[in-house]
Amino acid sequence: MKNRFFSIVFILVATLLMGQKKPVDYVNPFIGTSNFGATNPGPIAVRGMANVSPFNVAGPQNLPMEKDSRWFSTPYVNENPYLTGFSHVNLSGVGCPELGVIITMPTTGALVTDHEQYGSTYSNEAAKPGYYTNTLDKYGVKVEATATTRTGVSKYHFPEGEANVLLNLGLGLTNEEGAQVKVVSPTEIEGMRMVGSFCYYKSEESYPIYFVAQFSEPAQEYGVWKKPRKYNGVEAQWMVTNGETRIKKGFRQTVVGDSIGAYMRYNFKQPKTVSVKVGVSYVSIENARENLKVETQNKDFETLLAEAQDKWNKQLSRIEVEGGTEADKTIFYTALYHTQIHPSTLNDANGEYPKMQTRETLKTKDTRYTAFSLWDTYRNYHQLMSLVYPKQQSDMVKSMLQVYDESGWLPKWELNATETTTMVGDPAGIVLADTYLKGIQDFDVELAYEAMLKSADQLEGNPLRPGLKDYIEKGYLTTKTTKSGSVSTTQEYNISDFAIAQLAKALGKKEDYKRFSKRSISYRKLFDKEFNLLRPKNDDGSWLNPYNPETGANFVKNLGFIEGNAWQYSFMVAHDVKGLMNLMGGSKSFTKKLQQVFDKNQFDMANEPDIAYPYLFNYVKGETHRTDQLVSELLKTYFKNESAGLPGNDDTGTMSAWAVFSMMGIYPVSPANPIYTFTVPVFDKVTIQLEDSYYGGGTLVIKKEDSAGLNNEREVFIGKKKITKPFVSHQELLARKEITIKY
Amino acid sequence: MKNRFFSIVFILVATLLMGQKKPVDYVNPFIGTSNFGATNPGPIAVRGMANVSPFNVAGPQNLPMEKDSRWFSTPYVNENPYLTGFSHVNLSGVGCPELGVIITMPTTGALVTDHEQYGSTYSNEAAKPGYYTNTLDKYGVKVEATATTRTGVSKYHFPEGEANVLLNLGLGLTNEEGAQVKVVSPTEIEGMRMVGSFCYYKSEESYPIYFVAQFSEPAQEYGVWKKPRKYNGVEAQWMVTNGETRIKKGFRQTVVGDSIGAYMRYNFKQPKTVSVKVGVSYVSIENARENLKVETQNKDFETLLAEAQDKWNKQLSRIEVEGGTEADKTIFYTALYHTQIHPSTLNDANGEYPKMQTRETLKTKDTRYTAFSLWDTYRNYHQLMSLVYPKQQSDMVKSMLQVYDESGWLPKWELNATETTTMVGDPAGIVLADTYLKGIQDFDVELAYEAMLKSADQLEGNPLRPGLKDYIEKGYLTTKTTKSGSVSTTQEYNISDFAIAQLAKALGKKEDYKRFSKRSISYRKLFDKEFNLLRPKNDDGSWLNPYNPETGANFVKNLGFIEGNAWQYSFMVAHDVKGLMNLMGGSKSFTKKLQQVFDKNQFDMANEPDIAYPYLFNYVKGETHRTDQLVSELLKTYFKNESAGLPGNDDTGTMSAWAVFSMMGIYPVSPANPIYTFTVPVFDKVTIQLEDSYYGGGTLVIKKEDSAGLNNEREVFIGKKKITKPFVSHQELLARKEITIKY
Repeated sequence: MKNRFFSIVFILVATLLMGQKKPVDYVNPFIGTSNFGATNPGPIAVRGMANVSPFNVAGPQNLPMEKDSRWFSTPYVNENPYLTGFSHVNLSGVGCPELGVIITMPTTGALVTDHEQYGSTYSNEAAKPGYYTNTLDKYGVKVEATATTRTGVSKYHFPEGEANVLLNLGLGLTNEEGAQVKVVSPTEIEGMRMVGSFCYYKSEESYPIYFVAQFSEPAQEYGVWKKPRKYNGVEAQWMVTNGETRIKKGFRQTVVGDSIGAYMRYNFKQPKTVSVKVGVSYVSIENARENLKVETQNKDFETLLAEAQDKWNKQLSRIEVEGGTEADKTIFYTALYHTQIHPSTLNDANGEYPKMQTRETLKTKDTRYTAFSLWDTYRNYHQLMSLVYPKQQSDMVKSMLQVYDESGWLPKWELNATETTTMVGDPAGIVLADTYLKGIQDFDVELAYEAMLKSADQLEGNPLRPGLKDYIEKGYLTTKTTKSGSVSTTQEYNISDFAIAQLAKALGKKEDYKRFSKRSISYRKLFDKEFNLLRPKNDDGSWLNPYNPETGANFVKNLGFIEGNAWQYSFMVAHDVKGLMNLMGGSKSFTKKLQQVFDKNQFDMANEPDIAYPYLFNYVKGETHRTDQLVSELLKTYFKNESAGLPGNDDTGTMSAWAVFSMMGIYPVSPANPIYTFTVPVFDKVTIQLEDSYYGGGTLVIKKEDSAGLNNEREVFIGKKKITKPFVSHQELLARKEITIKY
Repeated sequence: MKNRFFSIVFILVATLLMGQKKPVDYVNPFIGTSNFGATNPGPIAVRGMANVSPFNVAGPQNLPMEKDSRWFSTPYVNENPYLTGFSHVNLSGVGCPELGVIITMPTTGALVTDHEQYGSTYSNEAAKPGYYTNTLDKYGVKVEATATTRTGVSKYHFPEGEANVLLNLGLGLTNEEGAQVKVVSPTEIEGMRMVGSFCYYKSEESYPIYFVAQFSEPAQEYGVWKKPRKYNGVEAQWMVTNGETRIKKGFRQTVVGDSIGAYMRYNFKQPKTVSVKVGVSYVSIENARENLKVETQNKDFETLLAEAQDKWNKQLSRIEVEGGTEADKTIFYTALYHTQIHPSTLNDANGEYPKMQTRETLKTKDTRYTAFSLWDTYRNYHQLMSLVYPKQQSDMVKSMLQVYDESGWLPKWELNATETTTMVGDPAGIVLADTYLKGIQDFDVELAYEAMLKSADQLEGNPLRPGLKDYIEKGYLTTKTTKSGSVSTTQEYNISDFAIAQLAKALGKKEDYKRFSKRSISYRKLFDKEFNLLRPKNDDGSWLNPYNPETGANFVKNLGFIEGNAWQYSFMVAHDVKGLMNLMGGSKSFTKKLQQVFDKNQFDMANEPDIAYPYLFNYVKGETHRTDQLVSELLKTYFKNESAGLPGNDDTGTMSAWAVFSMMGIYPVSPANPIYTFTVPVFDKVTIQLEDSYYGGGTLVIKKEDSAGLNNEREVFIGKKKITKPFVSHQELLARKEITIKY
């Protein structure tokens, strides 16, 4: 069996050299690379644009986990055997296919350009933040890779003899096609690849990613290849090389096409390493070249690797954990690592980035972030960023407002300056309100508020809130309004309206506060006492009939709920838990029903609507031990130091954020309500560095003290003060800077 | 019936304004646009890179003359009804499909991007050198077009309302695909289109042509479209818009693909004209923009049109004809016009052009010409250029030597810096020798000689002379050596060797003179007395059996002859007519056999091997009237003032050169032998301006004097001196500067 995880020797050496293990040493980039976690082990800088991922999901050799035979959203699956290169832009932890392009591959011997032929099995695989290595069995080529923010850097250890570096622009994770390539010199190739059509949707918004690849060794031979489509009929008779791959040796002009690539060829008299730096840009080839220059010029592979790891270590050292097992620390720091990938950097080193949709070149002062999977991330991810990385969170908020400025609407699922319009709800405003209410206020809050009101109130041509008219008039969407979950969408709008109300209150907009507070609880109209759960209503106000509240789990279609069922959604009203309790007949009934979600196996750890459920027992006096038990159990069951160590898609860090919070013992249970609730931490002590410019520096310490055990009610102290209800506001937490959790 | 020719009004007005008709007024660009002449009536500058041709060969509406359903080598056919745009780079008078891309089309109403939908019938068609116009019936849009060397300039007269200018990069004359496009601003689009694979052969040498299109009116809306290929199977189920055309409104980045385009949209409150200038370059987008700037900046359509016509008039005025009918003058000046299209300009305004094959950027001082169809043009075309346009001829020779410098071999059928390797033989040296021997010697003749020897002597890896080993050892190619005409290829090599011998003699290389003189008559070994014609030999020296010398006409495959049969080739030994006469048993037998070619209907006016045949009677005393009669008859039969007014493919001006010479009464009967022979001119007087720098200025005058009539032997005077044999050397002609032909 291949060693897919750390090389033990590597760790030992690292440990010896460094004296003691640092946060970065605990990260296992293979976590999430199976079980549809959709992360990849390739090197990436903190929130990097580039990422050198091993690409092993193409070719019949990888069936059944093959990208064209089933829906596939990751360039790498840990158990797949057949590697066809290294893709230089990739998404991490998403459920939709996208990117996975600009693929390099070292081979030896004769030039072969078909990935089904030139691919290889691989061994000696190892990875750390900013580093990946394996050996390609077929060629005896050891590969090492690292990355800067906008450049993937690889080092190929060739044996003597003929050697090739392929740059395959035909292959990609999705079936979106189209590329351009040009050999600039024996040490440089430039070009672009079309990507887009995230989820195979809105393909009209497909867009280019540009690149420049520079090679440490001048090629002895170079060229471009193109495999054109094959013609039939009379034309086929004319064509001497119909459908055959064309090798354009020495060609120095642009070639475009769907299935094209470029190659550098060598004939080494002794073993030789070739370093390849691939700079990328969403703006232009010129910018890709400048990115590469700014970030890597005059630096060799080892220097860049050391820098990448140092930056990762600094980033992860924001949180120090003590106690827990080595595995716990690995799971924790890997989760934290996975929260620092998306949202990722869209702008070039010179600040330029493409405008939403039309992609004119704009310039930004701060980082323009992209990959906002907000239906996922509004629930806990941005709350973690606000607490631990407030500057990042501030720039993300500013990026969201840039999206509004450019497109007229806040983002829903923004990706590389396109609005993919994936999932439901109007989540951006929740993040804006939550951030502002946590004291991160260095953004144009009036603009943010204007943007939030626009999607909340504009009835016609509103891409963010389809069905808004029904929602406002009836209080809910009906089975006729939408096929994307009338109940769940109503709930999402409720939470967004709650966020507007909270922000309105903070901004002194009393009328709005009242109006949106009222709107935020309209889900109550969908509460059906028959099931003591939410239930879809028809256009005429009648309940949907027949009705089975369990239908809808495991992505089965359900008229009322998207990606879930009534059990998985009914408690998703953290802003109105008391209201829900009343509807359900009181806290006991509420507790019983909530416990049933778990007992009836209706809880889905892998999807967002119910991920706060375990923490809802904290709302009931005497039931907090259930939270502690459940969270502990869920962590053990779903978060592990193995490739299948995530419950499913990481959802751009949302699952990882759940783990990070849960292992620290706190959780932001109610989006847009700046509070945390508690559970028993995994670690004895957690120390969070507080960012100077937002929080005045210092540390937030969370301590665990063994007391009565998990089966009993925990006690929580904020500073020296024991709290009676297991909630604390962000402000108070940062004032006291210490939590002690006794259990 | 549509008026496909001159607008009579136009001519009248022009005549009135100008006082009298100038050469340019006689040109009818519709000649050759039917009957596979493969010329097009669109505007082009003298030897222009750009050419705005109406494009009416796509779509089922044009069946049977539709480009994908049959081999098609022209963007325009006079009788076709359905126009789908105007292509901006085109070949003229060739037999292989190529170029016909960068297609613009004005439409009105809603945006439609499929040429099978948006195309239109057209009327009010008229053309002159540098000018073309028609009206698109479907849209009521009048189109006018002119051109500079590297820019096509169009003027679209839109009615009020919605208007579109489409730039279709999916459509092209061949099925070569791949393009890139970007809207730079509301008045500019840039991009490139892949072309190449001339004759659907050597597709690996396909290459880009770059362009920049500038619009006089800023678009109110703009965008890009792309029609991707359609997927089947499981992927098709995922794809929301599988195979559907994507309209990318407002998009401002690069889009690549096979079926793509860009559009500018307007909504005019009143009728409005939009001018579109499309600059092209074989080097880069930047150069296309610079070409456009240098050649058209600050000049409106009318100015550019006037300049284009003025330049054409200057160019055509090199020859003045008097006498003859209006139709004769039209046929003559149109033929002369058709000799000034190819070879065309490859280099940009700044001198840059792509190197052969690898296409690195090089720079030239003189014009780098391209489109050397040398198997055709070595026979008479370059001889015409040497006489009338020696500076052009000199630059063509220099271009041919650049090809040698860059690729290691002289051109055979060079096109846009690719060697298409079309047809047989080694014709470049014939042109080099012929040019040098005519006193045009401002090129590196030693380099030329070296190049000629290389292809004549290098046995291995010789792309110009396949079968050379057999040729040298046996004196001929055998039926085993080649499938491309063992006899005809032997003859071609003979002529090339004759050219080397002649040049060797001029350069004082006596040994080479002897060696190649001997080689030049080896065809004699293939003369079979049984038929009194040439006949293929097998590898063992036996005659090919059975043998029918008539097989091979009309492009039927024949082991001995390419594009012809024994009748059409046996006399193609102008350098050894006496030798052939001896083989045939004397001049009487020769005359009889030669006359049979015509009497047996074996003569093919539309193909090159036999086009000098009518002039061969001049070698027999007392038979010159046959030449006069035949040439007169052939001119009348095949060269007419109508769209079918060429015998077939113009072959980049070779057919036209035949007409020009024949109508002037002289003909360069033996390539690489600097002599002319005679026939009775069509015109009473022909005056050729002699170029100052090569011939010291002055004029060459050819006068016709009616005497005894066509049925008798003509008398020819060079200066005052009557010549006894109907041949004159180039040197003597230019010394005497006057020919009088009495008949």
